[in-house]
Amino acid sequence: MEPSSGSRGPGPAAAAVAAVLPAGGSGERLGGATPKQFCTVQGRPLVSYTVRAMERISWISDIVVVVSPENIETMKSIIEKYGHKRVTIVKGGVTRHRSIFNGLKVFAENEFSSQLLRKPEVVIIHDAVRPFVEEDILSKVVMAAKDHGAAGAIRPLVSTVIASAADGCLDHSLERARYRASEMPQAFLFDIIYEAYQQCTDYDLDYGTECLHLALKYCKTNAKLVEGTADLWKVTYKRDLYAAESIIKDNLAQEVCVITSVKEDVAQVSFLLHESLKSRIKVEAVSIALSKNDGYLQDIFSGQCYNFVCINDKKYAIEETQKLVNMLEKSNIPLLYPVVLISVHLGVSENTSCSIGMEELTRIKKFAREVKKKNVLLYGILFQYKDCLLLQETVNSAAALILALIMDRNPELIGQLLVA
Amino acid sequence: MEPSSGSRGPGPAAAAVAAVLPAGGSGERLGGATPKQFCTVQGRPLVSYTVRAMERISWISDIVVVVSPENIETMKSIIEKYGHKRVTIVKGGVTRHRSIFNGLKVFAENEFSSQLLRKPEVVIIHDAVRPFVEEDILSKVVMAAKDHGAAGAIRPLVSTVIASAADGCLDHSLERARYRASEMPQAFLFDIIYEAYQQCTDYDLDYGTECLHLALKYCKTNAKLVEGTADLWKVTYKRDLYAAESIIKDNLAQEVCVITSVKEDVAQVSFLLHESLKSRIKVEAVSIALSKNDGYLQDIFSGQCYNFVCINDKKYAIEETQKLVNMLEKSNIPLLYPVVLISVHLGVSENTSCSIGMEELTRIKKFAREVKKKNVLLYGILFQYKDCLLLQETVNSAAALILALIMDRNPELIGQLLVA
Repeated sequence: MEPSSGSRGPGPAAAAVAAVLPAGGSGERLGGATPKQFCTVQGRPLVSYTVRAMERISWISDIVVVVSPENIETMKSIIEKYGHKRVTIVKGGVTRHRSIFNGLKVFAENEFSSQLLRKPEVVIIHDAVRPFVEEDILSKVVMAAKDHGAAGAIRPLVSTVIASAADGCLDHSLERARYRASEMPQAFLFDIIYEAYQQCTDYDLDYGTECLHLALKYCKTNAKLVEGTADLWKVTYKRDLYAAESIIKDNLAQEVCVITSVKEDVAQVSFLLHESLKSRIKVEAVSIALSKNDGYLQDIFSGQCYNFVCINDKKYAIEETQKLVNMLEKSNIPLLYPVVLISVHLGVSENTSCSIGMEELTRIKKFAREVKKKNVLLYGILFQYKDCLLLQETVNSAAALILALIMDRNPELIGQLLVA
Repeated sequence: MEPSSGSRGPGPAAAAVAAVLPAGGSGERLGGATPKQFCTVQGRPLVSYTVRAMERISWISDIVVVVSPENIETMKSIIEKYGHKRVTIVKGGVTRHRSIFNGLKVFAENEFSSQLLRKPEVVIIHDAVRPFVEEDILSKVVMAAKDHGAAGAIRPLVSTVIASAADGCLDHSLERARYRASEMPQAFLFDIIYEAYQQCTDYDLDYGTECLHLALKYCKTNAKLVEGTADLWKVTYKRDLYAAESIIKDNLAQEVCVITSVKEDVAQVSFLLHESLKSRIKVEAVSIALSKNDGYLQDIFSGQCYNFVCINDKKYAIEETQKLVNMLEKSNIPLLYPVVLISVHLGVSENTSCSIGMEELTRIKKFAREVKKKNVLLYGILFQYKDCLLLQETVNSAAALILALIMDRNPELIGQLLVA
């Protein structure tokens, strides 16, 4: 999700680098009332993902988010809620270029900001609706901008581009291989892009969209083009929001931590479950009494795991799960993403006619509603087995349920006790 | 999902129209081994969706699917499994243009096909990986092709298009408003596009991608450009498969049919559930004893509903659900899409310590695994209520679970008895 090398790479360390994120768009192509940068994915606004993608990179000193006047309060509350750092909010203009220009001014013009930010050598410009930007491409465009004055990410064209004649018929089609789609991020020597914006006409500011074009037109700077990955796509249509949701779910479902109390029969099920899960997901197995030692768990909490399975004898399952919830609450894990916590209730029984009481079911539902407020999605799995012959089958069934719950992260199904 | 006006509109009725679907791509951009047209969405290969989009339109007489030699058997089995009609499979060439040319030959050259198809006046060319094409745009490009000889759907550019110089730097950027992305479907007078393919060079066949370009270059036909909707996008990357999956799920979750046996207390819950659901989904409510009369249900089965809720006293729930499964099996509904069937088990109890037996839970799971083979996803909801005060709360909880199950269509959760 967030590679641990994230902010520790060498990066373009020598240069002072800042980022400007235009987030003033109206999102009309999405067909909804909410501008796309404020649409939520896994409960969190898209713009927060993009801010996070910048914020985790230590060599970006300031992040300027430019929003339209009516969204300033919304943006403030997003920054507060998700604990974003190094962010300055700037009021946008009526067009994309005017918004970016406003963003640049906070580094140069005292009157525009209550707090003048330190002027960077290089400024990154990146769309708030491209949340999946990686450090690698940011580093590449920054380095290229240092050398060339300007740089931008490009991608191959997906469709052929054509020019139409006045009568609405085909005039000519462009040879696809000769052209590229200009994407974001782009980076510039601050002095060049600021000069370009100061020089450019009202027509440019009102109708233009391409920063690389301004640098070329007004500063004679031919931007270096850097091949980007498919991740750089811009959330434009409703289908892109669907895709973003699935990608983020997919990223969150890469790893699960299986926590087992030290009792022997529980440990056996845990071992088999681990074996069944590990061909399909990275498993971190912890055998521990939660009450006794949480040092090892703290190590896990400092990682990037958003899924926990807690295996316990059904008599103690809820109490043990409560301990884990308390630990999760103390960690920062549920701040940015909902955490899936699956409580496996283990019962060994010779009795085929055993049953689950409604009271117990009601208790789990109530508990799940409580922990939901802490951004923890709690599900129960009843793991009842009678003999060793059927044990493996039950293990496989439990593993399938665990994976499905982790992949789906469905908040409506919390508090249910599923049967493995 | 499939508008009922689908194949009944007037359409370009006077012309004989056929369609050629190139489906020979290797899908390398998806990063997977399976070519994208054969990737499954809700269990069904993407190409089947696109074939279905053509097949439901009565004025398209023949559908030619061009696949690479190694996928001919796969394609045959898809056509058989999903009961597609009017489809001819043709062996593709090594490039897109060669494949399309092969597809056209079955209308003109005896030697190429065991069965020469009737030559159409207009031929539609459409990608197998654009499954969401609607009759409206197909009709528009066909009519325009009749008038102009050629026509193609276009979309606004999402990104600025740029040309790079030999040194990998920006040469110039195109003014976005003057250009369009050329999408599919396209349509041609058969004689024009066939002539163009016969005339064109090996270089065109090997490196070209754009049919409109061939019609212009070799037949001096300036294609009419038709503005298409956002639906026309091409499944290119993995994220597009995610989006397709979500769009199809969304389409399938538009309507639910709630079936209630005629007993009075059941009917009351049914009424309240209907009220709670109808603000969020179209509800068709049927009050009926399933054993007595299925004429009314047949009407519903002939529609486009893929979600059923069956409300019964918990004593008879499984038996009644079995009857509905039998009816669904006789209908064709589960052929193209998995059908969600939610069995609501109703229990009125004064006893707070009532419980669910493991035997009952095991029985439901086994039953669900059986009906899964018929492409029916069966879920249970236990609706237990003690007094009228809590009834509304339980109704709301059941409605939320029903919507979540319908939206998710998760095959791993079948056979679970969720508690409302």
